[in-house]
Amino acid sequence: MNWKLAARAEKMNPSVIREILKVTERPGIISLAGGLPSPKTFPISAFAEACAEVLHKDGQAALQYAASEGYGPLREAVAAMLPWPVDPAQVLITTGSQQGLDLIAKVLLDPASRVLVETPTYLGALQAFSPMEPEAVSVASDDEGVLVDDLKAKAKDARFVYLLPNFQNPTGRTMTESRRAAVSAATAEAGLPIVEDNPYGDLWFDEAPPLPLTARNPDGCIYLGSFSKVLAPGLRLGFLVAPKGIFPKLLQAKQAADLHSPSFNQRMVSEVMKEGFLGRHVPTIRALYKRQRDAMLAALEREMQGLGVSFNKPAGGMFLWLRLPEGLDAVALLPEAVERGVAFVPGTPFYAGAGDPRTLRLSFVTASAEEIGTAIAALADAVREQLAHRAAAEVQRQLAASAA
Amino acid sequence: MNWKLAARAEKMNPSVIREILKVTERPGIISLAGGLPSPKTFPISAFAEACAEVLHKDGQAALQYAASEGYGPLREAVAAMLPWPVDPAQVLITTGSQQGLDLIAKVLLDPASRVLVETPTYLGALQAFSPMEPEAVSVASDDEGVLVDDLKAKAKDARFVYLLPNFQNPTGRTMTESRRAAVSAATAEAGLPIVEDNPYGDLWFDEAPPLPLTARNPDGCIYLGSFSKVLAPGLRLGFLVAPKGIFPKLLQAKQAADLHSPSFNQRMVSEVMKEGFLGRHVPTIRALYKRQRDAMLAALEREMQGLGVSFNKPAGGMFLWLRLPEGLDAVALLPEAVERGVAFVPGTPFYAGAGDPRTLRLSFVTASAEEIGTAIAALADAVREQLAHRAAAEVQRQLAASAA
Repeated sequence: MNWKLAARAEKMNPSVIREILKVTERPGIISLAGGLPSPKTFPISAFAEACAEVLHKDGQAALQYAASEGYGPLREAVAAMLPWPVDPAQVLITTGSQQGLDLIAKVLLDPASRVLVETPTYLGALQAFSPMEPEAVSVASDDEGVLVDDLKAKAKDARFVYLLPNFQNPTGRTMTESRRAAVSAATAEAGLPIVEDNPYGDLWFDEAPPLPLTARNPDGCIYLGSFSKVLAPGLRLGFLVAPKGIFPKLLQAKQAADLHSPSFNQRMVSEVMKEGFLGRHVPTIRALYKRQRDAMLAALEREMQGLGVSFNKPAGGMFLWLRLPEGLDAVALLPEAVERGVAFVPGTPFYAGAGDPRTLRLSFVTASAEEIGTAIAALADAVREQLAHRAAAEVQRQLAASAA
Repeated sequence: MNWKLAARAEKMNPSVIREILKVTERPGIISLAGGLPSPKTFPISAFAEACAEVLHKDGQAALQYAASEGYGPLREAVAAMLPWPVDPAQVLITTGSQQGLDLIAKVLLDPASRVLVETPTYLGALQAFSPMEPEAVSVASDDEGVLVDDLKAKAKDARFVYLLPNFQNPTGRTMTESRRAAVSAATAEAGLPIVEDNPYGDLWFDEAPPLPLTARNPDGCIYLGSFSKVLAPGLRLGFLVAPKGIFPKLLQAKQAADLHSPSFNQRMVSEVMKEGFLGRHVPTIRALYKRQRDAMLAALEREMQGLGVSFNKPAGGMFLWLRLPEGLDAVALLPEAVERGVAFVPGTPFYAGAGDPRTLRLSFVTASAEEIGTAIAALADAVREQLAHRAAAEVQRQLAASAA
């Protein structure tokens, strides 16, 4: 048969890293690789009660086809929990916030459209945009987020800038208040729309992050949120909030993509969220993740001493960003680390342009504090091994040079 | 802000019919419009048991992120229930079979690619393909499906033909065994891939439909199935079966689209399907829908007598196709019908090319047999009214002509 692939599909390649990480699913490997919330935080009994209640009270409607916009009371709950005035009519319930990225790409990106992203940025966003064949352009970034001058320089004719201001995936960094103010002013002046992705914002450790960019200019932003990190990812529920002019297009794209997100799941979440459940539940997640982040920082201080490794101190979320000493390469390190029982994700796939091969992402939420300690010690071993290799190779090179 | 829409989004227009049908949600209207399965058929207590069991036995995994391919035991159950040898590795679980259409479009359609469809075809497929901006080409069709000669004539350079052989949406027609054999031979000869959509195949009334096209040439077909019509649509679960060469591309598109379908729902359905549940449950749906189809046929025979209306007799599924007498128009009839308390969907949106304005789709599954009787009587009234209007207009025209 003449199966002819679309040009975009010809370009899709199986991820080398995904293949390596498949190995990490074998027992005995401690994975700091995945972005999997700790299953200890899933409110299983609350879900069990909600399921029973929804099926008992409203089973036929919960199992029927439903509006593409989403379940009314859930849209209202989302609007009410956001820190700026949101009309529920602007809330679209999505099949995870990943789907929001797919819908935005369909509505806003033509082939070769320029879309601006952070350096580095969320890999899943690059994957979601890619079927629409845009050109993803990296905006220079530091520990506080994108650099405003570079953003201004690249703003012209870009369709939007994609930003993840809170506890970013992959770096764990947070955009400061002053940077937000500057980015908001610069994008408004340039007329550049923002797509603001905020799956981790509620997972702060000591203090809540600054106000979202969308709150500062709601007509210039599409905001994405998720229930995956505050309730559970396995329900696949997220949402977006869009300006009224853009909303109908996103809704039509949603209808064509999967008709609507599961009505049953929407009612379950709506039921669970009643009576301030998130207000009681989310602090327990914050406390757990903070303990695990502290365990990771302590282990890194202890185990990496003298190795020339640098890393940041995330104020929330799920990830920490680490940079290996000069001459090492995270992709080459991964099999060594897996050999020693620990997995991570190398940093390069998270860059739209050329990546820094010394970087890697560590998750502190899936493994326990004790496992994190063991894993970081193993990782330090792997780094030492790679450094020794490199030193040996250097000696070899010098011998060869002096013999020549 | 400079929100610039993608070209595909500029072309998206709110459906006029969708707007009219919003009116039909008001109480007192009997809707023969929607494709909503009868909620009486939803196995609510089986779902309640399955939810409790899944959360009790396997709650953490059911609520966690999961593989994009889908839940292993569900993929195996799907492979086992299909009437040809299927490797579970070829089964991709989707967020409703609608999502399967979106993924196929991403993987197989470039802008201006030709995709062949029936006359008429499923509107949701046209909507799912449309973001990839293909050219949808109607293949001439009769009561048995696409005409083989026209299919052959249009096969060259087409990416695939999209076929819905069982109790088609919108017409309710079924492709006969001889037509299947001829279509299968013609597409194999032309090297033309088939996308076979089969959401309704289990809903037969007197005898099972002939073997799927995919069973005749698995390497030349992608097959789409759904749990929406045999269990419940509100879980949003479907599946596709693809040749091994195409599967990895569809999987990557799936990952980018929503990471994976809800793990919780997949386990629920897997749990419900244990011990031959569908074998006991589906016959009850068939019996109900057959009674309601019979009620619709009887009402049409009774109420439409002498009006010049023609209609088919579907052997299964959810829909019946009706053609109004010459000079009438289904879009113009709709407000008249809604006025009298009945809604339907006009036929024209289901055509990729110019549609037959006299056609309309009636669903016999949502309303009860009694409501169907009332609704068809109201519809006949609306037809009579339109015919009277038309006759009056004709008299007027003749008077004006003779006066001139």
